[in-house]
Amino acid sequence: MGTRPARRRLSVDRRREELITAALELFSRHEAEDVSIDDVATAAGASRALVYHYFGGKQELYVASLRSAAEELEARLRPEGAERPLERLSRGLSRYFDFVEEHAAGFAALLKGGPANRAGEVGEIVESVRRRLLRLITDEMRVADPGPVLRITLRSWIASVETAGLDWLEHRDMERAELERMLVDHMVALLEVAGRHDHRVRELIEMGPAS
Amino acid sequence: MGTRPARRRLSVDRRREELITAALELFSRHEAEDVSIDDVATAAGASRALVYHYFGGKQELYVASLRSAAEELEARLRPEGAERPLERLSRGLSRYFDFVEEHAAGFAALLKGGPANRAGEVGEIVESVRRRLLRLITDEMRVADPGPVLRITLRSWIASVETAGLDWLEHRDMERAELERMLVDHMVALLEVAGRHDHRVRELIEMGPAS
Repeated sequence: MGTRPARRRLSVDRRREELITAALELFSRHEAEDVSIDDVATAAGASRALVYHYFGGKQELYVASLRSAAEELEARLRPEGAERPLERLSRGLSRYFDFVEEHAAGFAALLKGGPANRAGEVGEIVESVRRRLLRLITDEMRVADPGPVLRITLRSWIASVETAGLDWLEHRDMERAELERMLVDHMVALLEVAGRHDHRVRELIEMGPAS
Repeated sequence: MGTRPARRRLSVDRRREELITAALELFSRHEAEDVSIDDVATAAGASRALVYHYFGGKQELYVASLRSAAEELEARLRPEGAERPLERLSRGLSRYFDFVEEHAAGFAALLKGGPANRAGEVGEIVESVRRRLLRLITDEMRVADPGPVLRITLRSWIASVETAGLDWLEHRDMERAELERMLVDHMVALLEVAGRHDHRVRELIEMGPAS
């Protein structure tokens, strides 16, 4: 009898995961307002009642999917040990754009304003992803405290990558690989500007970023 | 009797404007969830019933204030004929940051995710401001069709200015004037990168932007 509760929990967690996976798939390809609880239930081979049982409503389900997508993105961006820093940046960007492409409709809808959320949970998840991206880059640069110039520069660059992703989804009139190269060039150019505004950034660039 | 309806409409419009002004003032200094219809009525010296009469509810009032703020921002950014393009850009940025500072709480809350809005009106207003800023800059550059490289570069820069504004409100650990200079330097550096990715942009820069 000792193992029963643990096994039951495992199965409950797996059922919940399956619902989230089905929901994320739908929210990635359609705008949230076009996805119903019934759609998610059908896609997961579950009952409408089960979805309500786990999530209470569509908004909670949306937030859970978003959290899952955020975790997925962060896992993909974890550095993998390419040799040079710019090469690592370039690979990271490429994985970011894979993610953007796979979650196209959901990514666009989310970052253009997103669905209603009084508690601000959605905004909080988006902000948390941005903060972790910033941290990922400063860790790569081996900078513990970036200071205002570098912090603003990197946050600006992250915002510009997001915007480029949205623009690319909207227009697709530029090769993805070419866009990724341009964004790497942006980073180099912006760091060079940052170096002119903060000597610590200049020293960091002159030393060469940590490999 | 012929003038009566017209005079009545004028006064109705003015009353509505006064309510919007009071609301914008409150939404600029507090997060939307902390502003009540009663607060707006009190600030405008009006009754709660009158606010409901014109706006139906807080969300409508918020959207109307936001539209009014967007118009104000666009009016402030209209170019005023400083001599050199970079000087004009620099003055425009300075007026943008005046606006950010005056509407601090509202600006931060809005761009961090914003309040609930099922119809996406809030997101639409934000997107429309971004589109007009893009247009303002391409008009300044006398470019009718920017093409993907220049369009993405300018949208990225606009996103980075927005992000820098949010960061500055949050930390205020850099002189505003210094931050503005850095953002002008960003634009120059990003256009230089764009020139390497699109010969039409290079020609535009080499010719010198229209003065």
